[in-house]
Amino acid sequence: MLCRPSHPGNIGAAARAMKTMGLADLRLVEPERYPAPEADWMATNAVDVLKGATLHASLEDSIRDCVAAFAMSARPREWSPQVLDARSAAARAMALEGDVAFVFGNETAGLTNEEVFACQYLVHIPASAEFSSLNLAQAVQVIAYDWRQALGGFEVQPRAPEGLVADVAAVQGALAHWQEVLVGIGYLDPAAPKKLMPRLNQLANRARLTEEEIHILRGIARAVAKSKP
Amino acid sequence: MLCRPSHPGNIGAAARAMKTMGLADLRLVEPERYPAPEADWMATNAVDVLKGATLHASLEDSIRDCVAAFAMSARPREWSPQVLDARSAAARAMALEGDVAFVFGNETAGLTNEEVFACQYLVHIPASAEFSSLNLAQAVQVIAYDWRQALGGFEVQPRAPEGLVADVAAVQGALAHWQEVLVGIGYLDPAAPKKLMPRLNQLANRARLTEEEIHILRGIARAVAKSKP
Repeated sequence: MLCRPSHPGNIGAAARAMKTMGLADLRLVEPERYPAPEADWMATNAVDVLKGATLHASLEDSIRDCVAAFAMSARPREWSPQVLDARSAAARAMALEGDVAFVFGNETAGLTNEEVFACQYLVHIPASAEFSSLNLAQAVQVIAYDWRQALGGFEVQPRAPEGLVADVAAVQGALAHWQEVLVGIGYLDPAAPKKLMPRLNQLANRARLTEEEIHILRGIARAVAKSKP
Repeated sequence: MLCRPSHPGNIGAAARAMKTMGLADLRLVEPERYPAPEADWMATNAVDVLKGATLHASLEDSIRDCVAAFAMSARPREWSPQVLDARSAAARAMALEGDVAFVFGNETAGLTNEEVFACQYLVHIPASAEFSSLNLAQAVQVIAYDWRQALGGFEVQPRAPEGLVADVAAVQGALAHWQEVLVGIGYLDPAAPKKLMPRLNQLANRARLTEEEIHILRGIARAVAKSKP
């Protein structure tokens, strides 16, 4: 819910922030200028969320079907409702049964005291004391992100499958092969081996080598052995 | 670190996102247009971070003093480095000793494969499969926020002090007072009290009444008792 936003670009950017986090119910209270082309530009692929936004004459009107409203503010207020940080607010929103609203004020003036009092919680995004005011759409992004994370989050696609991790015997075999080659080229002195092989062993384990990589490393070892004059 | 950003406004908005989270080391690789007035406008009070940004000819040059670079991408890559979600990446960045970089690509094209390969981690912000591309500066905001939270976060200022919580005896005294008044006005039937007082007791405990509120509630009870004809 955006109260009296001045810049239509921020409305579009807020719609985009919401859609990337799977949220769609955008409500606008007396936007200064809307609809507007800047809103469409900033929404990019979230124009559906933007077009689905509902317009309201007041905050009270816009939250009447919600079980709780969370007022976003960068500054504390006297007589404010209960104060929560963003992550705790997301957890609280999760725990409530029914729809909840996160309420963002105007870019410059924020929410009025009356608007804050109409809400059940006052939420701060923990920010630097030196400069604590996030851009409106960026604040929407943080809240949408934390809310989504509280809901269980979206899955992150793992990287493309990278082949089977080699078994212990294959790794030890490759290390033995390299040991032989390193002795052969005079880099490893069997009489004074220092900690070379334990170090390479540690490296190989940490790297979680794949079977294909074992083939490559053995291939290099063979090539090294052959290249010796 | 922003690689080849097209829109100077995004550079400014990224600087603002960083400063609100207490970060200051902004690095730019071949920005399309910079410096630019839009960057200053979007930075608002973070113009110092913007002015302190360093310019680099390549990603490799810009991360040479870092112990790890985290490539931001909305899509998986073949041959990518280890994949992490944003929150895990923030924790990993915390755990590493030395400077780390979060690397963001161009608004439209993202990072090239070569740039991703130059990094040690590939990071996705978990987002909707339907539309997973966050606005550049909003992605910077999410990462800066998660990183700051991983670092321990900033404190949230509690609301103005609201007086001492009343002790148990004071709360029970007020409830007993109200019970007397409710019987007096005929709302509570002592012969069939149902669960009225346990319900009010539960409400009073949940509300964590202050001493001042106890005075107010007792004052109302007295006024109710007096108003009875």
